Amino acid sequence: MRHAIDPAAVEARLREDQAGTIKAVLVVQVDTSSGVVNDIAAIRRAMDAAGHGALLMADVVGSLATMPFEMNEWRVDVAVAGSQKGLMTPPGLSFVAAGDRAVAAHQNAGLRTRYWDWTARDSQIHYQQYCGTPPEHMLFGLRRALELLFEEGLDNAFRRHRLLADAVRCAVGVWSQRGALEFNIVAPTARANSVTTILLNDGRDPASLLKYCDEKTGVVLGRGINELTGKAFRIAHMGHLNAPMILGTLGAVEMALVALDFPGASGGVQAAIASLARSAPATP
Amino acid sequence: MRHAIDPAAVEARLREDQAGTIKAVLVVQVDTSSGVVNDIAAIRRAMDAAGHGALLMADVVGSLATMPFEMNEWRVDVAVAGSQKGLMTPPGLSFVAAGDRAVAAHQNAGLRTRYWDWTARDSQIHYQQYCGTPPEHMLFGLRRALELLFEEGLDNAFRRHRLLADAVRCAVGVWSQRGALEFNIVAPTARANSVTTILLNDGRDPASLLKYCDEKTGVVLGRGINELTGKAFRIAHMGHLNAPMILGTLGAVEMALVALDFPGASGGVQAAIASLARSAPATP
Amino acid sequence: MRHAIDPAAVEARLREDQAGTIKAVLVVQVDTSSGVVNDIAAIRRAMDAAGHGALLMADVVGSLATMPFEMNEWRVDVAVAGSQKGLMTPPGLSFVAAGDRAVAAHQNAGLRTRYWDWTARDSQIHYQQYCGTPPEHMLFGLRRALELLFEEGLDNAFRRHRLLADAVRCAVGVWSQRGALEFNIVAPTARANSVTTILLNDGRDPASLLKYCDEKTGVVLGRGINELTGKAFRIAHMGHLNAPMILGTLGAVEMALVALDFPGASGGVQAAIASLARSAPATP
Amino acid sequence: MRHAIDPAAVEARLREDQAGTIKAVLVVQVDTSSGVVNDIAAIRRAMDAAGHGALLMADVVGSLATMPFEMNEWRVDVAVAGSQKGLMTPPGLSFVAAGDRAVAAHQNAGLRTRYWDWTARDSQIHYQQYCGTPPEHMLFGLRRALELLFEEGLDNAFRRHRLLADAVRCAVGVWSQRGALEFNIVAPTARANSVTTILLNDGRDPASLLKYCDEKTGVVLGRGINELTGKAFRIAHMGHLNAPMILGTLGAVEMALVALDFPGASGGVQAAIASLARSAPATP
Repeated sequence: MRHAIDPAAVEARLREDQAGTIKAVLVVQVDTSSGVVNDIAAIRRAMDAAGHGALLMADVVGSLATMPFEMNEWRVDVAVAGSQKGLMTPPGLSFVAAGDRAVAAHQNAGLRTRYWDWTARDSQIHYQQYCGTPPEHMLFGLRRALELLFEEGLDNAFRRHRLLADAVRCAVGVWSQRGALEFNIVAPTARANSVTTILLNDGRDPASLLKYCDEKTGVVLGRGINELTGKAFRIAHMGHLNAPMILGTLGAVEMALVALDFPGASGGVQAAIASLARSAPATP
Repeated sequence: MRHAIDPAAVEARLREDQAGTIKAVLVVQVDTSSGVVNDIAAIRRAMDAAGHGALLMADVVGSLATMPFEMNEWRVDVAVAGSQKGLMTPPGLSFVAAGDRAVAAHQNAGLRTRYWDWTARDSQIHYQQYCGTPPEHMLFGLRRALELLFEEGLDNAFRRHRLLADAVRCAVGVWSQRGALEFNIVAPTARANSVTTILLNDGRDPASLLKYCDEKTGVVLGRGINELTGKAFRIAHMGHLNAPMILGTLGAVEMALVALDFPGASGGVQAAIASLARSAPATP
Repeated sequence: MRHAIDPAAVEARLREDQAGTIKAVLVVQVDTSSGVVNDIAAIRRAMDAAGHGALLMADVVGSLATMPFEMNEWRVDVAVAGSQKGLMTPPGLSFVAAGDRAVAAHQNAGLRTRYWDWTARDSQIHYQQYCGTPPEHMLFGLRRALELLFEEGLDNAFRRHRLLADAVRCAVGVWSQRGALEFNIVAPTARANSVTTILLNDGRDPASLLKYCDEKTGVVLGRGINELTGKAFRIAHMGHLNAPMILGTLGAVEMALVALDFPGASGGVQAAIASLARSAPATP
Repeated sequence: MRHAIDPAAVEARLREDQAGTIKAVLVVQVDTSSGVVNDIAAIRRAMDAAGHGALLMADVVGSLATMPFEMNEWRVDVAVAGSQKGLMTPPGLSFVAAGDRAVAAHQNAGLRTRYWDWTARDSQIHYQQYCGTPPEHMLFGLRRALELLFEEGLDNAFRRHRLLADAVRCAVGVWSQRGALEFNIVAPTARANSVTTILLNDGRDPASLLKYCDEKTGVVLGRGINELTGKAFRIAHMGHLNAPMILGTLGAVEMALVALDFPGASGGVQAAIASLARSAPATP
């Protein structure tokens, strides 16, 4: 996948569905394998334009707290998230938020399974008596992470993610100039602020790059997964992260590119530094 | 202080001291304010050449575990160290090692004070009965830090410090090309592997640079101290440190230099990356 | 529930099921609400005696690592466990172990749901590609807990649980002598080594006892749950636990019993101490 | 030492010193080897009664935050304390507080040593330039411990120490009834609220008791030190401590006394529980 979901295509597909067989549109806000960000507000508008009654469900695991997500304004019916990315808590917790339309649909759902059944879960008594032992240490961690986020301010956190992602994209832009690498996501506006996926060209295998970064610098990069297995690597830039952390990571990647003789390997980090200096000018 | 101690000057001074009034030569291996490294072996040779019987005492607080220190081979009589630098443990512990000549001199010392008196300390019984409560949590931390060091191997730790220091010096070398900055220590061979002190020229005040790094990037640099107050800043590169940490730090400094319009601010990190890539080539 | 499952009743019930409508016998080894321990080996023998082909499934959440569980020897087909009790890890992980007969039955199961489907889970490729982010911090914690257990030795851990449970039962035995309290589980042999549930008689409400222990001593006791709500309290004695911890807990309960004027409140802890001293005699 | 300092003896000794050769009276508020508490206010009154101008210096290492210490009201001129007892921080920090008379005496002191010289220390510039690296992790720990203390309230902390110490003394009182043990400090009012020292009679060696507690229960008791070596053991009850912790400790000791056949070994913990229940009655 190298492109964001096209809202026009969603609209066209829904218009075809006269019989209403489509029950829900599922969309991931940021897909952490491809590095794409989808425009959920635009998909909502496309659904409205088609006049189709499907539910809108969003996976915000890879985006929550790194960019705006307006469940009410965009009329998202169900959202799922997890603790381990923008929420800065170890993996192990996931969350479901459901709006009125989703709850109403649930009342008539014909495929409930016991573990996931909202009815059973949505009750204090039930919860206390049958839900088992909650993962309370994870909850304590999440509470502290949320305190950190709210102390920073969500808008500041969004801006921080955007500026750090810009720095990464500046570096990758330079490294790409001689064609050895390229962004997996073609359109600049469709590149996520939480992760960047980078394709290797000319049949290069990312394994040696990942190995170099791990063994020589201690930096563990994401592998390409699914159809990108063996073709890409990923730089995550979400969560508890600041400029020196991202510059250190980019520095490790550039070390690897230089050491592995990638054409056009130099200059990426310098461009990232320039981008960050512009976005964080000195206060007079 | 912009130079290492000159062994020839030590030799000359000792030759003048026919009366033997000089009881000891005190030398710091790495001075963390100036960033100088002194050549203790050469000072030992100078003392030998002068035929003077003074004790040789070394302060290795800022150097131990970051570079070789051969107490026996160099016949250092007393060495003092601390927990908080190359030994990677919180500050709070210091150490004294004394050789036979120092212990012998102590027997006749006329200026003992109760707290520091080696005789009282050098006894199991005394230690158990009168020494008070040892800082055992610090000792546990030190033990773990020593395990980390020995797992890495001292020679590897020395090499790591040297390569990371080289990367810092490459960056500072580039930043210095247009004269806005310069190394405090003039001779390249006298620059320490544990810390680099950088002078600002043209009357620039390091305060704005330190403030930028702290507030915009979270990186806290060392201030100039003593005669360098208001004239210098310091980049520490000792202890539990790797390439992305040092590149992140240098990246933060270069951000500040760019944002504060230092002439010749760019290119330092790129030079550091090239240096590290050379010293850590890809394994075929 | 005041009694363990009667294996004879299981046998009789299975003999009645000529049509084989019973697919599985589910048994909890230790039920942490009632404090009962069921004899799984005896249930296995009862199933064998009835010649019935039902699967035997065991919930060992509240017992694993506190007492023997012989999945192979007792031919248990499925076992489920959790991280947070005898395994001494924060809550958040659960485990399923399945034997050959269970796996075979699964092949023909007509009620698979996506999340729980073993087929999808039982594959390295599937696991890597679709399983999501594992709760690795919990797994690191579990690994360390297992190391602690294996260092102690499972037999030693079982013995420790038995002796500490004996101490608790000695204390409760004394407190029960004047009828204010009694064991929820009637038969001494059916009382679990991981938790003891205690009924309050004469209409006493455990709330004041729980409140006293919490507010005056910091000890948080388990409430009675399910049909024991408002009638019982529970003392847990499983996991990372030793003699002073259990004596401190019993001491807090006895403080509360004395302060709340329970008849026969004294002497329980003294009996627990005597029991522990007998089971841990001084080495000559 | 089995008795507190007698203020009348202090007064008499000072009256004899017509020449004023005594420069200071040094007193420890709680001596953690003997378990004595000295009455500093009474010693102050004795000094006043004698009309002698000696300084009053107090060691409050073992008492600060466990009982009142009124430096101003009692006109104590110098007080020394440490981090590791009532202040609930790892060992490694000590403190000196000096009043006006002590500072004035210091101006004319003829035995200053560089490390301890207050003049050098009592200056911001000096501190920043020459004092070295402060043990800041210890200071962070101390700050948190002080927050805990002030949240509890000093008066509450004093009361907590008194009640827990009373419980220990109740237990020791019972264990002593048949003469196998006795309090080291003879007068009940001279027994400290932070530690209790217990003598073994009839030539019994505390080593087997300490070994039993350590190996069988994990409780590490204090050894007798100085003149009590081989004759006594100590139960500390200061700092971050509550009722179940003290009852667990006493329970471990009573296990050892029973297992080692001390006459009159039982009943101590029961008395401690009764004492605590009286001092923490149930709220109606």
